[in-house]
Amino acid sequence: MAFRVEHDTMGEIKVEDSKYWGAQTQRSLENFKIGIEKMPKELINAFAILKRSLAVVNHSLGKLDEQKNKAIIKACDEILEGKFEGMFPLAIWQTGSGTQTNMNLNEVIANRATEILGGDFRKEKLVHPNDHVNMSQSSNDTFPTAMHIVSVLEITHKLLPSIEKLHKTFKQKSDEFKSIVKIGRTHLQDATPLTLGQEFSGYASMLEHSKIQIQDSLECVRELAIGGTAVGTGINAHPKLSEKASEELTKFTGVKFVSSPNKFHALTSHDALVFAHGALKGLAANLMKIANDIRWLASGPRCGLGELNIPENEPGSSIMPGKVNPTQCEAVTMVAVQVMGNDAAIGIAASQGNFELNVFKPVIIYNFLQSITLLTDSIDSFNIHCAKGITPNLEKIDYNLHHSLMLVTALNPHIGYENAAKVAKNAHKKGISLKESCIELKLLSAEDFDKFVVPENMIKPKE
Amino acid sequence: MAFRVEHDTMGEIKVEDSKYWGAQTQRSLENFKIGIEKMPKELINAFAILKRSLAVVNHSLGKLDEQKNKAIIKACDEILEGKFEGMFPLAIWQTGSGTQTNMNLNEVIANRATEILGGDFRKEKLVHPNDHVNMSQSSNDTFPTAMHIVSVLEITHKLLPSIEKLHKTFKQKSDEFKSIVKIGRTHLQDATPLTLGQEFSGYASMLEHSKIQIQDSLECVRELAIGGTAVGTGINAHPKLSEKASEELTKFTGVKFVSSPNKFHALTSHDALVFAHGALKGLAANLMKIANDIRWLASGPRCGLGELNIPENEPGSSIMPGKVNPTQCEAVTMVAVQVMGNDAAIGIAASQGNFELNVFKPVIIYNFLQSITLLTDSIDSFNIHCAKGITPNLEKIDYNLHHSLMLVTALNPHIGYENAAKVAKNAHKKGISLKESCIELKLLSAEDFDKFVVPENMIKPKE
Amino acid sequence: MAFRVEHDTMGEIKVEDSKYWGAQTQRSLENFKIGIEKMPKELINAFAILKRSLAVVNHSLGKLDEQKNKAIIKACDEILEGKFEGMFPLAIWQTGSGTQTNMNLNEVIANRATEILGGDFRKEKLVHPNDHVNMSQSSNDTFPTAMHIVSVLEITHKLLPSIEKLHKTFKQKSDEFKSIVKIGRTHLQDATPLTLGQEFSGYASMLEHSKIQIQDSLECVRELAIGGTAVGTGINAHPKLSEKASEELTKFTGVKFVSSPNKFHALTSHDALVFAHGALKGLAANLMKIANDIRWLASGPRCGLGELNIPENEPGSSIMPGKVNPTQCEAVTMVAVQVMGNDAAIGIAASQGNFELNVFKPVIIYNFLQSITLLTDSIDSFNIHCAKGITPNLEKIDYNLHHSLMLVTALNPHIGYENAAKVAKNAHKKGISLKESCIELKLLSAEDFDKFVVPENMIKPKE
Amino acid sequence: MAFRVEHDTMGEIKVEDSKYWGAQTQRSLENFKIGIEKMPKELINAFAILKRSLAVVNHSLGKLDEQKNKAIIKACDEILEGKFEGMFPLAIWQTGSGTQTNMNLNEVIANRATEILGGDFRKEKLVHPNDHVNMSQSSNDTFPTAMHIVSVLEITHKLLPSIEKLHKTFKQKSDEFKSIVKIGRTHLQDATPLTLGQEFSGYASMLEHSKIQIQDSLECVRELAIGGTAVGTGINAHPKLSEKASEELTKFTGVKFVSSPNKFHALTSHDALVFAHGALKGLAANLMKIANDIRWLASGPRCGLGELNIPENEPGSSIMPGKVNPTQCEAVTMVAVQVMGNDAAIGIAASQGNFELNVFKPVIIYNFLQSITLLTDSIDSFNIHCAKGITPNLEKIDYNLHHSLMLVTALNPHIGYENAAKVAKNAHKKGISLKESCIELKLLSAEDFDKFVVPENMIKPKE
Repeated sequence: MAFRVEHDTMGEIKVEDSKYWGAQTQRSLENFKIGIEKMPKELINAFAILKRSLAVVNHSLGKLDEQKNKAIIKACDEILEGKFEGMFPLAIWQTGSGTQTNMNLNEVIANRATEILGGDFRKEKLVHPNDHVNMSQSSNDTFPTAMHIVSVLEITHKLLPSIEKLHKTFKQKSDEFKSIVKIGRTHLQDATPLTLGQEFSGYASMLEHSKIQIQDSLECVRELAIGGTAVGTGINAHPKLSEKASEELTKFTGVKFVSSPNKFHALTSHDALVFAHGALKGLAANLMKIANDIRWLASGPRCGLGELNIPENEPGSSIMPGKVNPTQCEAVTMVAVQVMGNDAAIGIAASQGNFELNVFKPVIIYNFLQSITLLTDSIDSFNIHCAKGITPNLEKIDYNLHHSLMLVTALNPHIGYENAAKVAKNAHKKGISLKESCIELKLLSAEDFDKFVVPENMIKPKE
Repeated sequence: MAFRVEHDTMGEIKVEDSKYWGAQTQRSLENFKIGIEKMPKELINAFAILKRSLAVVNHSLGKLDEQKNKAIIKACDEILEGKFEGMFPLAIWQTGSGTQTNMNLNEVIANRATEILGGDFRKEKLVHPNDHVNMSQSSNDTFPTAMHIVSVLEITHKLLPSIEKLHKTFKQKSDEFKSIVKIGRTHLQDATPLTLGQEFSGYASMLEHSKIQIQDSLECVRELAIGGTAVGTGINAHPKLSEKASEELTKFTGVKFVSSPNKFHALTSHDALVFAHGALKGLAANLMKIANDIRWLASGPRCGLGELNIPENEPGSSIMPGKVNPTQCEAVTMVAVQVMGNDAAIGIAASQGNFELNVFKPVIIYNFLQSITLLTDSIDSFNIHCAKGITPNLEKIDYNLHHSLMLVTALNPHIGYENAAKVAKNAHKKGISLKESCIELKLLSAEDFDKFVVPENMIKPKE
Repeated sequence: MAFRVEHDTMGEIKVEDSKYWGAQTQRSLENFKIGIEKMPKELINAFAILKRSLAVVNHSLGKLDEQKNKAIIKACDEILEGKFEGMFPLAIWQTGSGTQTNMNLNEVIANRATEILGGDFRKEKLVHPNDHVNMSQSSNDTFPTAMHIVSVLEITHKLLPSIEKLHKTFKQKSDEFKSIVKIGRTHLQDATPLTLGQEFSGYASMLEHSKIQIQDSLECVRELAIGGTAVGTGINAHPKLSEKASEELTKFTGVKFVSSPNKFHALTSHDALVFAHGALKGLAANLMKIANDIRWLASGPRCGLGELNIPENEPGSSIMPGKVNPTQCEAVTMVAVQVMGNDAAIGIAASQGNFELNVFKPVIIYNFLQSITLLTDSIDSFNIHCAKGITPNLEKIDYNLHHSLMLVTALNPHIGYENAAKVAKNAHKKGISLKESCIELKLLSAEDFDKFVVPENMIKPKE
Repeated sequence: MAFRVEHDTMGEIKVEDSKYWGAQTQRSLENFKIGIEKMPKELINAFAILKRSLAVVNHSLGKLDEQKNKAIIKACDEILEGKFEGMFPLAIWQTGSGTQTNMNLNEVIANRATEILGGDFRKEKLVHPNDHVNMSQSSNDTFPTAMHIVSVLEITHKLLPSIEKLHKTFKQKSDEFKSIVKIGRTHLQDATPLTLGQEFSGYASMLEHSKIQIQDSLECVRELAIGGTAVGTGINAHPKLSEKASEELTKFTGVKFVSSPNKFHALTSHDALVFAHGALKGLAANLMKIANDIRWLASGPRCGLGELNIPENEPGSSIMPGKVNPTQCEAVTMVAVQVMGNDAAIGIAASQGNFELNVFKPVIIYNFLQSITLLTDSIDSFNIHCAKGITPNLEKIDYNLHHSLMLVTALNPHIGYENAAKVAKNAHKKGISLKESCIELKLLSAEDFDKFVVPENMIKPKE
């Protein structure tokens, strides 16, 4: 393997010759051999967008010449096109300011930009990682800015559309099932009836509420630290840089970003991500409830509740035909648990800032992005491989509904509460139906029973 | 001790004669001897407000007669006046729907209303707990409604005002300290300077952001389950009850509430509280950072950072004069940790709903209210006993600022980065000042050094 | 109300005359009006045991005279008898070293000891809180010592016996149900059979494992910080104090304690409690699984699984006879959730030590003791009000077992897997029994079917 | 790309021809496109060890012929040699029993074993994935067995040795620094002195305690589910299989494993892993404290505590010479936070079992293994790149020690507490030394001061 020598203020270091990164990336690689978790490519892309936008702004402020500006832009665009996969090898578990990843970006962009300008980055740096790519920037403001950019983009472009698709499925099911009256259950015990459509409308409403909460929570995430530089004062930055950068980012991404009104807050507090992840935890809790409901309602086929059929995607046991394991539900509930764990980590990390910086940034964004990706993917998977294929087991629903003792409630006005209670208790004791019990106790004729006990009338308010 | 006999559908049970509660409260008392945590009185009051409002609505809908309506209203008002402390003795650790606390309210109100109507509740129930006080209601909709009412009220009337007061203190300090230039610190290491006022502006901004996040998160909490009754269908309720109840609650409390658009969601999902508690966790993280900063900046008196003085509220050690322990900071950080624990509990609980109900309601509201109370009280305590009394230790701040090696940055344009580095390294090695180092290395005169190195010029962006 | 004036190094302060506490307790009361959570009486008692034991040791080392020793012992014994309830009013949310509670003990004991010696503590201190009651001690070693004492005592005397009682119940049920063959369920789906006794043996085994884990985890909790005094060096303490104190504590309590081998560890790390609480979290997880199983198996009465009957302790709904809500299960699962939240808080708190002290001690012991109490009480309550009364619903168990399609497995050797699959699929499709399906497909006679399909033979390994 | 067709009970499916996996792996790949987290290779290896051992046992029990036995053993050995990387592509987020990964192993081993026997697995299966590789097994017992095997092996072979190495470093430092007396700090405030060696002995003791706790916690993890098969009854397994498998695993790995005494427990409860992870959380809390101490003690270089020097591994800021960021400490503390998040996830997951199975197994082992790997790697990295290179800044330590006001304690016996207090207060007020203050107040001569104030005498107990 061929190596070249790169330099930084600590001296020389060997870098594999095929790599675009420089000395500081190399040192981090060697000093932080921890775990297998790398900086997510979504974050790298957000960084590339940021570096690109700052080149544009620095150029417009007269600080960066046209040539270098164009070269940096082109290098960033190539990163966004995926041409430099493998050039961002650093671990999450590095310096807590993310400096080394900021430098990784600076080094790769500078070297590629040097190439673009016709230079050989192995010998010269026509574009300098610090002076040009990192111009008017610090890890301390770029890293939290990239965290916010990637969070808003991933939620906007991935998570929210996924939620909408599953919401649409539940809405359709809710309409489709609107006339199927079924037994309700509270405390796992039989309760008064509702329609299967109403039950699914609850799921749709959950997703709708989660969506609103997530969207609302993004407002503070749109605020960017950029322009705060090393400690929040903006030393070395132009007074207009922060505003202009936010505008350029808004323009480039098509998504709204604003300059944080207080950069000391922006470098040290991650309240915006804690808050937004609280919305993700609310979604996780909702998904856990929904997935649990569906696997319980599909439990059986003989010895469970059996009111729903879900798609069979894999062979069940090799010895038991008819066994459909609710595997998509299981993946969703495991993801929900993971999101809860991530939420704990993010909260602790966010509380550990000191003075002008919080140095738990990589662990925060790692957990935040894992939650977004897992929620997005598992919602999509669940939607496609399970939710869309749900059908009611009408026979079982009907059986349960008509065997439930709580329909006796409808008899109160006709035979009185006391007699109704007798009917129910007699039925329970003997394992017979309410109708049979009524007839046996000579309280009502079969015809009257059928006239009075109409579950369809028990599913909404009445004047 | 005198006892009377109360009845319910399970039969007779003895109740201490001085108590206003009935059979179901008594059974719960006997069946759930778990822990010392009782239903918080704030929740009991929210329940009384709810029961009162429903009496008003049921009366206006023609379902409850004038006399009973008035008696129920008066009984609820008396609860709100604190006349029935000790009459709500039930544990958090009861049925997960909170049914027993709903019945506790129903029983006490019915008995007191019976008295108000001139009856003797020990002998007769002129107002019936179920038929009248619980009219058109179920535990399943009243308990989550009371959870939302108490959460909005406590946050609006207690937590937010506390935050505002501490925010005001920090704002004032920020103004007061705006000309005090001090060393910045990132990674705990010396960095470029900022003003103490800027540092405090960061704290103010944290509280402002937390406030915004908490306020925003309340929108979904304003949605009320009332009207959903047993399973969300609204069985036994009037179609207009939900809207009218929300209006009456808004009118009575002066705080906005609305009817939840989907009652199946409202009975089974607690996403609104998970989300709102995420905002509280963000606040907790911010408070931990602030309290840590302040105790670190006040550390010493001799062997710490020593840049701030904080009020001495208790004797330090009996042998060490001058030792001021940052006890208010410690209380705040312990509260922050508790809020993080509570957040974990709330998230798990919210994920465990099944079908038409989530039966982890008491544990959710217990943790939620504990967080609100602890945050409110500790912020108040910290504000009064610590924040307001913070003063700068100007001598130490100045000493640190002028001994910091990073001021060398200002020399880059004058003697070049390389020489500046030499100056700093020489100063570090010999433990002398930058100025001394400059002179020793014959790079600058004392006059020039003083002209070039002006920390006051390093605290903001520059064109 | 009458007041007296007490003094400390900060000056005078008014104390309600009926109170035994002194100036420092009073200052804490006024400075920390946070929340309603007081130092648990179990911790106060552990402190009294500790103060008593140290008087004994200091006396034996010749540092405390006989008279004062006896007076302190008597005062401590009176606290342990419950005579001073109301005299320990301090909040959890105080200084993080628990100094104020240490002083609360010192002050009350000194004042009461003064009385015992015939003095009037309002005028004179025959026994001094610092010099005598706190002799050779610091809050920094007594508070963590009291934390360990109370944890070991409460677990030994309360939690473990509770676990044993519930374990015994499950063991008995396991024996009682050993011949009841029932359907197994994995992924909530029907699986191969087992006995109800085997199912309950799993619950018994869970409790047995939790018990072992909790017991094992106590080993490190038996190590005591006492003797470390202010920073772990043992300044002001006699070299033999630590060993002798541990011996005296072992003797007095009848429970083994040892001197911590490294006091710097003992003052700053709470790994022992984190670890022990991990065992409690394991128990909580087990209880959640057990309580969930039982409420699911008891779900119904008509539209659930219905294989178990649980005691009816309260009226279910006023309109639905036969509805038994699994309220004891609900209390247990809420407790399990709380323990998980507490575990999060304890872990964070334990990580936040600095230098010679961790100042999150009160929040740690608050959560630890809440977990012990809630687990103990809820296990007891669940045992008495639910577990002991569990009976099988033999008819439903039998019905489920014999309608399950997975019994078809037993036919593999006789008609081959392919035909068995056909039998099962035909039965599933037509909603008939396996036997009916066999006969319909002319694969087996009814007699042969009954000979081959014997669930009782499917519940154990076979050579 | 060439494809072949594989079959399972659901029909045909196309598999890339170069892959050794079969139909069920392929289905999982297509149905669970969730996240980037794959089943860790350590788990795959544990599975290979298990499959190998079961072949040996089944052969010894006369159930598997010699030829197939040898082929399976060889295939497993090749997996362990790393020859099949890329053949285990399944996500964590799959079925909650891990069935698909069990089948992935079965399929790859069967195909490779077929090859070994001279067959072409694309056309025939000389060794069948279910009948031979999975003989007498179920996912429900193999997956939790593999979880336990990998946990014990990774902790024994990786984590514990790492802890020992860092422990050794701290022990050496403790010896090396045993004569360096320094100021103690409690509540971040100056306190009585100790030696730097004592401070490091605390770190060593923390690691020693964590090691003991982790080791102790492994006892229950050594218990294996194998032999429980589908629901814990051991259906389809030989009565001796479980014991023999544990013996073979012990023999093959050189690490003790035993058969779980109750397989119903073993399939449904993960208390052993919750408990063991509690020990890991204790370690994480200890590491956070240690890493925080070290970065605080190394803070500066001028405006922090500055008592320790840590190795400089990367350039600090390009403008500030002498700035050494404590990046290794930051990586360790981020890992500690991650472990806390993982602990939350594991606890929740472990609580969610139902009936005969817990279907949150993949998420549990994912988090558990991530914790082990991150702890191991970050401890190693911290040891090599930071701890070993720590040196004391003797000048600063000495300066702090001798400027601390609490040394005044030593004067109490000579000039009385009152006068000593005067000395300290005067020194604090005027910013002078205790000695200067003494002389100024004419209380002691310089000679007497030096005789009485000897910090070296304040670092241990005294009779």
